[in-house]
Amino acid sequence: MKAIPDAEYQMRMTRFQANIKAAGLDAALVHSNEADFANVRYLTEYWPTFETAGVFVPAEGPPILLIGPESENYARGRSKVTNIEMMVEYRESADPEYPGIPVATFADVAAKALPGRTLHRLGLVGTTILPLPVYESLQRDLPGVELVKADDALSDLRSIKSDTEIALMREAFRISEIAVEAILNEIKPGMTELQAIGIAQREIYANGGEYEGHALYCFGGPATSNAISRPTHRPLKAHEIIQVNIGARVGGYSSSVGLPISFGPLPVEQKRLVEFGLEAHFKTLELLRAGRPAAQVVLDYERFVEERGFSEYMLYGPCHGIGMMEVERPWMESSSEYELQENMTFQVDTFFCSGGEFGLRWENGVRITRDGAEKLSSRFMKLVEL
Amino acid sequence: MKAIPDAEYQMRMTRFQANIKAAGLDAALVHSNEADFANVRYLTEYWPTFETAGVFVPAEGPPILLIGPESENYARGRSKVTNIEMMVEYRESADPEYPGIPVATFADVAAKALPGRTLHRLGLVGTTILPLPVYESLQRDLPGVELVKADDALSDLRSIKSDTEIALMREAFRISEIAVEAILNEIKPGMTELQAIGIAQREIYANGGEYEGHALYCFGGPATSNAISRPTHRPLKAHEIIQVNIGARVGGYSSSVGLPISFGPLPVEQKRLVEFGLEAHFKTLELLRAGRPAAQVVLDYERFVEERGFSEYMLYGPCHGIGMMEVERPWMESSSEYELQENMTFQVDTFFCSGGEFGLRWENGVRITRDGAEKLSSRFMKLVEL
Repeated sequence: MKAIPDAEYQMRMTRFQANIKAAGLDAALVHSNEADFANVRYLTEYWPTFETAGVFVPAEGPPILLIGPESENYARGRSKVTNIEMMVEYRESADPEYPGIPVATFADVAAKALPGRTLHRLGLVGTTILPLPVYESLQRDLPGVELVKADDALSDLRSIKSDTEIALMREAFRISEIAVEAILNEIKPGMTELQAIGIAQREIYANGGEYEGHALYCFGGPATSNAISRPTHRPLKAHEIIQVNIGARVGGYSSSVGLPISFGPLPVEQKRLVEFGLEAHFKTLELLRAGRPAAQVVLDYERFVEERGFSEYMLYGPCHGIGMMEVERPWMESSSEYELQENMTFQVDTFFCSGGEFGLRWENGVRITRDGAEKLSSRFMKLVEL
Repeated sequence: MKAIPDAEYQMRMTRFQANIKAAGLDAALVHSNEADFANVRYLTEYWPTFETAGVFVPAEGPPILLIGPESENYARGRSKVTNIEMMVEYRESADPEYPGIPVATFADVAAKALPGRTLHRLGLVGTTILPLPVYESLQRDLPGVELVKADDALSDLRSIKSDTEIALMREAFRISEIAVEAILNEIKPGMTELQAIGIAQREIYANGGEYEGHALYCFGGPATSNAISRPTHRPLKAHEIIQVNIGARVGGYSSSVGLPISFGPLPVEQKRLVEFGLEAHFKTLELLRAGRPAAQVVLDYERFVEERGFSEYMLYGPCHGIGMMEVERPWMESSSEYELQENMTFQVDTFFCSGGEFGLRWENGVRITRDGAEKLSSRFMKLVEL
């Protein structure tokens, strides 16, 4: 089982159309690109590459997939939405002109999606990545139409996972753990950070993954103080923290398993922070349960860290949503205004750093249950000194 | 040698600032995301992940790198531009709030970059990917400032490659060829398309690559008719075209080597198109030379294909720019208005398909010279029946 069944795609579209109607919108335009692929794929299974993609969804009636001029055969073979229009707004970023290839406009698309009806209010979904050419064309081709940010209409649906979605996530985490194990078995001092990534990539694809769940992490020394970073050609060394975060993607669902490791013992101060990080990681797991306010989890976590005297090492935490994207809504922040619900899925993401010198991240996935949190990964929740 | 030297980054910035001034602009705002990373990395070496990035470049004086709130340590360790501001507009697409973390506005940035001067005209670079939050903040925080599309100010610089850039591209193509060779040695019927990709990923990282140059291709059967596609869990079969396009990235420079292969002989009609494709591929190589109008290359190629009776199988071609992105400006189209210049680099990209049934792509990189085209890859320009 490596895919969402057709009936689930139909149900998603029905529910999304209900949300569009409830928001007082006549239609919604959903946007994705090859990296930020989730919204369009959630509704259609289509996952663009090189080009971008949209879905124009009327409050009632058949939706239309919008693609670039080169993706026609690919989209016809993959998309669950069978009405497809090619538009120059979804072409490659290198901006080809495609002389002679016919394309549609948003006015054409709106007329097809809303036959005999007038478009007054159009919701925009994926607004953080909606690019200028799409926005300008909407303003030019749909004069007088009110453009309304409507990300919640889809992200609320995406935040509660179905049994099928959770099965895909379990599989993605299983493959991530295989890839982490291969790294632990094969890395040695002198190997570069990027060469370690190659071990994980090999295992992800060999074991049924379709892609990395995020740009993979393996880096040592001062780079471990980076909340976000990329692996380099730097050789791995003994007696320093090496941060490993490996995520596979399966059927559109992402995962990540993160742990700090070392060759031989770490200096005392580093080991102390690594061990406290793991303790804080387990503390978060205790705090998660359906019905709890997300902000309360954050406040309880922050108080725990403060009482133990580690606040100066804390940048943020302790959880963010995961699903199709390795980081997706909802975040868990002190300003969050929602309660945890059964079948929400989160990354427990425990990051601490000591200035720019060193840092560590423990990261595992969970599914929220009525009684607590079910772990989607758990094999690497212990200190590893190779 | 795996990186552009600092002096070259300084020269790029100087030239870009000259272009900004020549365009009558007071400053330019350059945008990149993790997938479409090239513009910001060209100027700063910084390559975002999860978050996005910008560079605010005044016509004179020091530029400022703009990042999301989580990337500070990473950016300080990597960016050649040392003035760095964190802004909420460059945060992750999942839209965290970051309560309590201080961020700058575009008004703050403009004041720092243009001390004592007034910003009248701001050029935008990377407009095909510039997202709504950046655009809305510019309109809100810089009222009265004229926003001007200025992609040419940077893409013209990027289109002529330095010796260092060409050395990095040669290395990327060398690794791509190693990865293709590994696939040819190891794939067999019954292996999935995605498992073949894992072989290439392993070789890219083991041999000094920093990432894939593009989402890698390996797919068989009807999917070969897709100009753009993605590998799947479909098993590879004998006696059908299997399209392989593998690209490594080194030091920010991308490559791709593409060829159709098969297990055992192909049906006559498929083999005929594969062989004609290779002939057309060599024809394009003959047509390239500094001083030739790009549009003339396209017209000559199209006439060759027509005279040989294969026009119905042609979707587009025959070349697109390559450099940091595997597909970047300039495209070579019948509407192109530029002449080929020495040290422009192109992918000779020869794609033919028979309806939705089958297709093939031959693809190799070249550097334009005064006398012709120097191949950056050439090991796999022959029919391979395994």
